[in-house]
Amino acid sequence: MLMDARRFAALPDPFPMWRGGALHGARIAYETWGELNPARDNAVLLFTGLSPPAHAASSNADSTEGWWEGMVGPGLAIDSNRFFVLCVNSLGSCFGSTGPASENPATQAPYRLEFPDLSIEDIARAGFETLRSIGIERTCAIIGPSLGGMVVLAYAAQFPHSTRRVISISGTAAASPFAIALRSIQREAILRDPDWHGGAYTDERPPATGMRIARKLGMMTYRSAAEWRERFGRAPVPEDLRDTAPFAPEFAVQSYLETHARRFVRAFDPNCYLYISRAMDRFDLAAHGGSNRAALLRSGVEQALVIGVESDMLFAIGEQRALAESFSAAGIATQFAPLTCIEGHDSFLIDIASFGKEIRSFLALS
Amino acid sequence: MLMDARRFAALPDPFPMWRGGALHGARIAYETWGELNPARDNAVLLFTGLSPPAHAASSNADSTEGWWEGMVGPGLAIDSNRFFVLCVNSLGSCFGSTGPASENPATQAPYRLEFPDLSIEDIARAGFETLRSIGIERTCAIIGPSLGGMVVLAYAAQFPHSTRRVISISGTAAASPFAIALRSIQREAILRDPDWHGGAYTDERPPATGMRIARKLGMMTYRSAAEWRERFGRAPVPEDLRDTAPFAPEFAVQSYLETHARRFVRAFDPNCYLYISRAMDRFDLAAHGGSNRAALLRSGVEQALVIGVESDMLFAIGEQRALAESFSAAGIATQFAPLTCIEGHDSFLIDIASFGKEIRSFLALS
Repeated sequence: MLMDARRFAALPDPFPMWRGGALHGARIAYETWGELNPARDNAVLLFTGLSPPAHAASSNADSTEGWWEGMVGPGLAIDSNRFFVLCVNSLGSCFGSTGPASENPATQAPYRLEFPDLSIEDIARAGFETLRSIGIERTCAIIGPSLGGMVVLAYAAQFPHSTRRVISISGTAAASPFAIALRSIQREAILRDPDWHGGAYTDERPPATGMRIARKLGMMTYRSAAEWRERFGRAPVPEDLRDTAPFAPEFAVQSYLETHARRFVRAFDPNCYLYISRAMDRFDLAAHGGSNRAALLRSGVEQALVIGVESDMLFAIGEQRALAESFSAAGIATQFAPLTCIEGHDSFLIDIASFGKEIRSFLALS
Repeated sequence: MLMDARRFAALPDPFPMWRGGALHGARIAYETWGELNPARDNAVLLFTGLSPPAHAASSNADSTEGWWEGMVGPGLAIDSNRFFVLCVNSLGSCFGSTGPASENPATQAPYRLEFPDLSIEDIARAGFETLRSIGIERTCAIIGPSLGGMVVLAYAAQFPHSTRRVISISGTAAASPFAIALRSIQREAILRDPDWHGGAYTDERPPATGMRIARKLGMMTYRSAAEWRERFGRAPVPEDLRDTAPFAPEFAVQSYLETHARRFVRAFDPNCYLYISRAMDRFDLAAHGGSNRAALLRSGVEQALVIGVESDMLFAIGEQRALAESFSAAGIATQFAPLTCIEGHDSFLIDIASFGKEIRSFLALS
């Protein structure tokens, strides 16, 4: 039996979308760790990166490894003995939350491209409403890495005084042209795959080539050249993975990409990928009030922690530094932690010790 | 009338290929600037990056702008008043030199995938034989950027005492796993394009999607995030380039990539691209004698200049530093010029002043 610790929150109906339109009968899948205290003031809301589900860590209800295993749990940096931790599957994703792959109640067919424009602001609002659905109006902290690092900013900007603390990890206040270029090429690979069919692909025949290329490009920009030099160097493809097709892979790094690409093709819905990817390009915190500082000034946030990684090529360290400066300029007590991990953007998934230390000490502040 | 300053050198028949096989009736297209002196000792041989033709600079014979305009010519850094400069179109390319798009004399049809495995060593040998065909046995200098920066190393390693000086610009002694990953994704985009047809595409219907994606990825890694931040920021697509297709480009950086991609699709042959791209992955200077130092020790090179750029993500500055150290360790008088241009790998095409200054002063050494 597959274990499943997910619960589902019904979103308000209609659920208004930031760029127009509304969803009906939408829901959010989430998981929780720890207990809500009687004062209802120990909630920590966790948003994910682009592709993970709500299963951040193992628990009695689901003992499989989560995407942030070692970070969330009893006695860990995000301590479930102290906090009531809730992780949401993003609105627009495909692991239980409503998204382009979900059934459109108006047609009883999947939304596909009929899904309204998705914004980072909508993902934030869906998290906010998930908490409200279980009677939580204000959180002790909201935390998010990567995409989640943008979502927490949209959350703070949209819902003043809804959270005491913000932790933005390897995120940005607005996508850089480099990140926009990368994501637009990933999307183009999917859009131009003949099997995409204007979004009307079948389960049997998804746009596999497009998804493979999108994922391989993701892996390239989520890691770093330095890590790969240490890890793969110029080692050849293992004997058992060799193949005789023209221009077949010859180096170990190619097999590594291949393995990740194959897993991704059927694990993530292509239309959901397109919607979330574009939302990341479009996000601009300054749209909330005219500047990043203005957006944060009215947030009522008391303390902020911004973590970035020197080797991150996709969300450059300068973007986190600038974000920390915006928090400070808005009068918020801010810590900025530039880490030197060599694993690039994905370091938060790998170097649990370094990230955990920063998060733990920040959450220990009174 | 189209101007064309190209000449053609017949390669020895058979022309042996480094990984086996041989070419028959092969030729190299080249252009020259300046005059060979009576001592025949003022020749400078120039190799190109992956995609340019032999037309490095304008001249009376062809007044169109060349790919290194401002660098090669009378009084310029590579001074045609002093040197007899010869630039070759790489073996395996498609601008007059023999490559996969050329007619196979054995079948009177294009080689396509019947073209033998191509190596950086073959591109170097073809340049060497081009010079020999016009009676030049030894050059004053060999110069190459990017791909060319690898070719000059293969040249020095294969033909001892054939050149007095080497200038390797933004090249490497062996491709990094990051560069291999990037190039293998570019190739995969072409290989999986249904219009590639196992290499047997038609002129009317080349694998356009694959070539577009390959080129866009190239542009991303040839430049730098910092340059794009300054140049494009988050500016929107110009009005006249907007389109209403699903997920159409919204940012100026996307239009920029689109413009370059469209130009490239019909400008470069896909099979040639695949062959040259793979050759870059495979190159390893240390294959010549067991180490980079050993390869260079027997080269008879007297002086070397290695130029790299801090913002180059594809051929990282550390690779040029290590190469300069190998030259030094081989007893060669070596200059290393780490430049701080923000234009990334392609800086040599843009910052003519900075590169020209290094090249000019190096070539002025006695």
